[in-house]
Amino acid sequence: MEVMKVSTRRRSEFIDITVEVEGALDRSGAEEGVVVVYVPHTTAGVTINENADPDVRADVIGVLERLVPQGAGYRHAEGNADSHVKASLVGSSVAIPFSGSKLALGTWQGVYFAEFDGPRSRRVLVKVLRDAAG
Amino acid sequence: MEVMKVSTRRRSEFIDITVEVEGALDRSGAEEGVVVVYVPHTTAGVTINENADPDVRADVIGVLERLVPQGAGYRHAEGNADSHVKASLVGSSVAIPFSGSKLALGTWQGVYFAEFDGPRSRRVLVKVLRDAAG
Amino acid sequence: MEVMKVSTRRRSEFIDITVEVEGALDRSGAEEGVVVVYVPHTTAGVTINENADPDVRADVIGVLERLVPQGAGYRHAEGNADSHVKASLVGSSVAIPFSGSKLALGTWQGVYFAEFDGPRSRRVLVKVLRDAAG
Repeated sequence: MEVMKVSTRRRSEFIDITVEVEGALDRSGAEEGVVVVYVPHTTAGVTINENADPDVRADVIGVLERLVPQGAGYRHAEGNADSHVKASLVGSSVAIPFSGSKLALGTWQGVYFAEFDGPRSRRVLVKVLRDAAG
Repeated sequence: MEVMKVSTRRRSEFIDITVEVEGALDRSGAEEGVVVVYVPHTTAGVTINENADPDVRADVIGVLERLVPQGAGYRHAEGNADSHVKASLVGSSVAIPFSGSKLALGTWQGVYFAEFDGPRSRRVLVKVLRDAAG
Repeated sequence: MEVMKVSTRRRSEFIDITVEVEGALDRSGAEEGVVVVYVPHTTAGVTINENADPDVRADVIGVLERLVPQGAGYRHAEGNADSHVKASLVGSSVAIPFSGSKLALGTWQGVYFAEFDGPRSRRVLVKVLRDAAG
């Protein structure tokens, strides 16, 4: 399992970690299996979305902010209740198959660390799971 | 890893792919492990929900359309910003355990390809991951 | 694969199952891999969020109730259409890496069974997937 660090600079921000995930797969030497990317934080998540137009990430963040606005009468008193909710909606892990040592991402797909309570120093875990039949 | 094709006919549509996922598991010969169903597109996803009343799928699609309406002032200029957001909310993969070569789906569960920007020709990847202890 | 039982007491409720998931990992004896926690129901899910302040879970439930209210003109006639939608938003599985036989949960993370149509007797499946390289 590899642990990578991510530094975020805004409260809500999607950071492209595709190259880092591919690097972990390369270093593992594995040929067939699934990579699990896991975020061990409760106010951030991970998602897969378009890697071309950055407006897509802005739109995802914008919709989440509209649906779950900051400071809208939550019980949790730390001012980041919305961040926790967004984390549960987006999810804390993604599972991506690989074959021939290559991630099966679609042409337009990138892997994004989803910060909802930055700026912070964060960690992302990448576990390469080999298929036992391999 | 198997690649299956899905043809969608509407802009938003849930297509039952349960039988195809079970077929991939059968062909693998695996007995214990987890099947990962992965969608390599950024305006579609995959989800598990009720297989009996098709109204449930219509309700999921209806709520997503209400929460993330098409053409509601997004930055992304291709007219499908909402489709990208819905994909991140629903997710691009599901992981389903299997035991005795049988998927551990609940009685009422089916696996659905979730189209949010159809009609299109789509692909779905099915990776059967055997448990190394098997 | 282990099957655990969960009894819920309210219509919407998050129940901490972290200790049970850790127990399944311990009993497996596995050292490196990924645990998949899977909910075989269509009106419940599983999510990872803060384990300290219970207000966080109340806030997640509160936002989901605001976005997807019960009885808001759905097609599905059983009165739990909202529960099905919430299940698809939260998701039916989580994948958590482990290393040295220890779950890689963050300090503040717990694993929660997410009931959206209780009270009911529910099941949760825990599959420990060893890395074939182990």
